[in-house]
Amino acid sequence: MNKMIELIQNHRSIRKFEDKLLSDEQIKTIVESAQAASTSSFVQAYSIIGVKDKQKKERLAELAGGQAYVAENGHFFVFCADLYRHQLIAENYSQDASEALESTEKFMVAIIDATLAAQNAVLAAESMGLGAVYIGGLRNQLTEVCELLKIPPYVIPLFGVAVGYPAQQPDKKQRLPLQHIYHEDEYNQDKVAYYQQLNDYDEEISAYYQKRTNGKRKDTWTGQMAGLLAKPARMYMKKFVEQQGFNKR
Amino acid sequence: MNKMIELIQNHRSIRKFEDKLLSDEQIKTIVESAQAASTSSFVQAYSIIGVKDKQKKERLAELAGGQAYVAENGHFFVFCADLYRHQLIAENYSQDASEALESTEKFMVAIIDATLAAQNAVLAAESMGLGAVYIGGLRNQLTEVCELLKIPPYVIPLFGVAVGYPAQQPDKKQRLPLQHIYHEDEYNQDKVAYYQQLNDYDEEISAYYQKRTNGKRKDTWTGQMAGLLAKPARMYMKKFVEQQGFNKR
Repeated sequence: MNKMIELIQNHRSIRKFEDKLLSDEQIKTIVESAQAASTSSFVQAYSIIGVKDKQKKERLAELAGGQAYVAENGHFFVFCADLYRHQLIAENYSQDASEALESTEKFMVAIIDATLAAQNAVLAAESMGLGAVYIGGLRNQLTEVCELLKIPPYVIPLFGVAVGYPAQQPDKKQRLPLQHIYHEDEYNQDKVAYYQQLNDYDEEISAYYQKRTNGKRKDTWTGQMAGLLAKPARMYMKKFVEQQGFNKR
Repeated sequence: MNKMIELIQNHRSIRKFEDKLLSDEQIKTIVESAQAASTSSFVQAYSIIGVKDKQKKERLAELAGGQAYVAENGHFFVFCADLYRHQLIAENYSQDASEALESTEKFMVAIIDATLAAQNAVLAAESMGLGAVYIGGLRNQLTEVCELLKIPPYVIPLFGVAVGYPAQQPDKKQRLPLQHIYHEDEYNQDKVAYYQQLNDYDEEISAYYQKRTNGKRKDTWTGQMAGLLAKPARMYMKKFVEQQGFNKR
């Protein structure tokens, strides 16, 4: 196993950072790494907002559901799906591009582009000895996030990434069995095998929680998922992304 | 600059591979690297189909618009947004999870999860001396792709990744200026600066094409984008993703 694969496979989300800011040089290296990712038909349909302002970070922490590490970190990045510059280009070419811009296809392209860039950023940061955590909670209240960060139409903040000097070393959480995620030549729809894999995985995850909490917690993964599915979250999203100009046709 | 950042920043899409298959060990390492990526609320809402069957690869190459490297490579991965196992879990808990599963939010979560995993896979492959290219053309005809790979509901193939031993060393394409992609504290909506950046970038990209083609091509980036926007692509996508159970509310 080479160093890069070791780094990739040793990933943990870091949620507690030392009180030390990233340098501008570090930020630049991280953003340049993000930009080096592949992009669908070279569209580069994303942008990144780096938040330094302490008050803005605190407000974002509130909006994301009160996670302290959104404010307390070395730097906070907001990754956005972005077709705003494409809209400006169309304007400049006196072209009505709304059909393309508003399509579900382009919505997907912009999410994929932004996410490829983000994962490059996270790995670049980790390779520099920094830690990182994705903040999906940013999607809790996107209207407010957009106001705060002056986000124009055709842009959707997708998630945050808090980066900084790690002040914790959490355990690695075991993923689903490889054969559950990875299929060969066709999707394996054998439900009996599927449920068996989930069952085995539940036992593994439950043992992990029991060990970590001295027996206090023994959640299973399917139990967690069932709980999550029972509380539909962020149901305003469809309307919100349409208001931003995406996913309308 | 450390080795990892060098690797990330030296990324090029490889579209010509030696006639040599990946070993099962290499495939396993790549998939395990994919699995190590972060996942929203630990949902692991993706799956990967590795295609070895030569006929299936050739059919996928056709469906993706006739790109030879979809069939001719060391291994072909299809990355899917996947809430199928979550649907099975809900069934098992006698729970109606359709509101959550069908939400635009969960559609985004599944795309993000699959894409984080994919970028880990690509970088793992590159660190092993392999090359890779994303195949967005897979989305040209997803109904046929789903038939071929026996994809169940609540699963959407998002893109392919062809991996193999590189048989070419393409130039690196210059990305948008950093300050165009990266904003500080708020989104910079200064249109004059924006158009100026695009103009500078157009000159750079045009010089790149002229050099590469001995003056035959001199496209600008905004020209390419305007061309792309003028031909709305994959407009069946909204209906398709809804039929698969996603993005309905």
